[in-house]
Amino acid sequence: MKFGGTSMAGIERIRNVAQRVKREVEDGNKVAVVVSAMAGETDRLVGFCREASALYDPREYDVVVASGEQVTSGLLAIALQAIGVPARSWLGWQLPIHTNDAHASARIGTIDTQALDAALATGEVAVIPGFQGVADDGRVTTLGRGGSDTSAVAVAAAMKADRCDIYTDVDGVYTTDPRIVPRARKLSRVTYEEMLELASVGAKVLQTRSVGLAMKEKVRVRVLSSFDDSKDDGGHRGTLIVGEEEIGDTNVERQLITGIAHDKNEAKITLTSVPDRPGAVASIFSPLADANINVDMIIQNIAHDAGSTDVTFTVPGAELARALDTLTRAQEAIGFQKLIHDTKVCKISVVGVGMRSHAGVASMMFKALADRGINILAITTSEIKVSVLIEEDYTELAVRVLHTAYGLDAEEEPAA
Amino acid sequence: MKFGGTSMAGIERIRNVAQRVKREVEDGNKVAVVVSAMAGETDRLVGFCREASALYDPREYDVVVASGEQVTSGLLAIALQAIGVPARSWLGWQLPIHTNDAHASARIGTIDTQALDAALATGEVAVIPGFQGVADDGRVTTLGRGGSDTSAVAVAAAMKADRCDIYTDVDGVYTTDPRIVPRARKLSRVTYEEMLELASVGAKVLQTRSVGLAMKEKVRVRVLSSFDDSKDDGGHRGTLIVGEEEIGDTNVERQLITGIAHDKNEAKITLTSVPDRPGAVASIFSPLADANINVDMIIQNIAHDAGSTDVTFTVPGAELARALDTLTRAQEAIGFQKLIHDTKVCKISVVGVGMRSHAGVASMMFKALADRGINILAITTSEIKVSVLIEEDYTELAVRVLHTAYGLDAEEEPAA
Repeated sequence: MKFGGTSMAGIERIRNVAQRVKREVEDGNKVAVVVSAMAGETDRLVGFCREASALYDPREYDVVVASGEQVTSGLLAIALQAIGVPARSWLGWQLPIHTNDAHASARIGTIDTQALDAALATGEVAVIPGFQGVADDGRVTTLGRGGSDTSAVAVAAAMKADRCDIYTDVDGVYTTDPRIVPRARKLSRVTYEEMLELASVGAKVLQTRSVGLAMKEKVRVRVLSSFDDSKDDGGHRGTLIVGEEEIGDTNVERQLITGIAHDKNEAKITLTSVPDRPGAVASIFSPLADANINVDMIIQNIAHDAGSTDVTFTVPGAELARALDTLTRAQEAIGFQKLIHDTKVCKISVVGVGMRSHAGVASMMFKALADRGINILAITTSEIKVSVLIEEDYTELAVRVLHTAYGLDAEEEPAA
Repeated sequence: MKFGGTSMAGIERIRNVAQRVKREVEDGNKVAVVVSAMAGETDRLVGFCREASALYDPREYDVVVASGEQVTSGLLAIALQAIGVPARSWLGWQLPIHTNDAHASARIGTIDTQALDAALATGEVAVIPGFQGVADDGRVTTLGRGGSDTSAVAVAAAMKADRCDIYTDVDGVYTTDPRIVPRARKLSRVTYEEMLELASVGAKVLQTRSVGLAMKEKVRVRVLSSFDDSKDDGGHRGTLIVGEEEIGDTNVERQLITGIAHDKNEAKITLTSVPDRPGAVASIFSPLADANINVDMIIQNIAHDAGSTDVTFTVPGAELARALDTLTRAQEAIGFQKLIHDTKVCKISVVGVGMRSHAGVASMMFKALADRGINILAITTSEIKVSVLIEEDYTELAVRVLHTAYGLDAEEEPAA
């Protein structure tokens, strides 16, 4: 079980978490709990470090910020004991959770579970601070913001847990953003691959990194609400994130498309009149790659002038300034005429493992958008995803149109 | 160097501490710094534990409260690096500082200084969170409130440091409380034994426990203000707490009496008409000893009835209720008639190693008090201390009278 900062914000909520853990124990489960710091605490601690020095030593930063989860793990152990559940905290260095020494964004290597297994065998609940570990030299490390999800999946993998339940402030993964489409449906199951596509394109439920790890380690992850107190009859609440083999064809819910995501954090860049010669495209993308800028969609148009072409592509909005700077400095080498950029764009993606065995998903998308007069600026596809770039103003309309077109609308709007 | 919570309260103050450490380093010293949590932080964390459960597990309490010093040690390391002083934090379990497993009030055993010595040899400053250690089973321990002074002395002893400078919010140890006697003088040197008597009877400068450890380990401790920025020419600021051999007879400052302390936290108990037979006194004090109640002054009077006596003694005010309860339950066995108690009393102590070689210290005290009509309720003496119990209302008068009688008044009142 993993509980985020909102669930741990204050003793009253920590007590609620303890009750929820107690129910799992009473159902006969052996439980390890991974906890985040109290909401706001990590920001407070990071603020201290920044105030102490803009160029803070990440090794000392880790010592400071790891304390937030240390506090909540001790408090949850106390709250569990108070309601008769044997429990103890296991700090990152106590288990230990081995990481590399990339302080402030460390990666988990192995987790020793001998002591943990022994404790759980006695019926004790293990409370583990998320986000932290220890490097080979014995210094405290942290995994980077949001790392507690990754800690939970890593602990579940090391323990060979049946399930990793991530409690959050949403009650699962939806077919699309319910604020845009009130008839969005909660998915009972989704594959790792779909979740990766949905998460990375905007469905902010789980850290992408934790989903990747779950896929690699085959950890069955469930996302569910920590504020829903309804009786859970056997793990059916929330959304289960599993391998494709667990979804199966017999699932009556099975759709061609699992969900629709949108991402407004893209920026479009166009280079005009790039010489149409071998190596011209490489001369654009090599310097961007060298600068570690991630290019997503690419289109090459025929330009008006003979012998030259326009090249359009997208980069993450946060990297736009660096990308423009990099390209300007390479203008002579590339030989383009003008550099145009546009941040008022949005990437809409339809995602689903079902499209592997069905043709026509992309054309259905293009037609549905064209019917409403929505212009497609760029296209990119993967095995389980089709993405298009459109003008930002059309975002909500496009999501709604596609949600209906692929038959994802729930029969009625949910009660508020 | 040890800095308390007031000195560590916020980044601005931590930066001041860093500057002070830098000066020591620039003077050619190898420095280890022991820090407290930010003022108020330990109270906040203790509050969380109490709120989580009145009967909190002290092992988990230690995990929670140790985080306060973890944060400040990381931040001070960052602040030192920011001004060009190489530094790193060493948590209790990293050194390690071994303690017994008496969680929440652990006692330091040994401190491994191999890593520490190696770090200091490279010119790096070691920043060590006070108040924390690690038990043999690898669990986090804390030393009890105020334990950071003890940590500092223990680290200084383990490192065989030349000096342990304790920075606090007073600028040294005074002949008496300057709020009562404005002409109280700051002592430049005081012996461990005197400091123990002065601390335990009310001069709240250093934890008694840390002074006892300093005496045992022969650590030269200096108490000085963290808010005094004047240039220190060779460690002469504040008060130095050392062995008697370092004080010497040639010290022109040498007085018969070093200081005068008062303690209002005493309670007087009288049992009337206790049978005057062998074993009667034992029947009173055995049950109190069994209940771990510390009895201080004892007087036995001749009672009015033949064959019985009144017994009067003092206990710490905080233990009065338990003492009364214990005695009431033992009334039949002891055979006393009435149980009378009085909390409006004060213990006044004159302290000084000088009295070892001088007779007449006690009689001078009794006479000075009698001249002002101050009634003495009880007396107790040790080799370097004479204490009397008086009515609380006379406290300030008695302290002033004695301060003058023993020639301790400064020539003029200090500038405010």
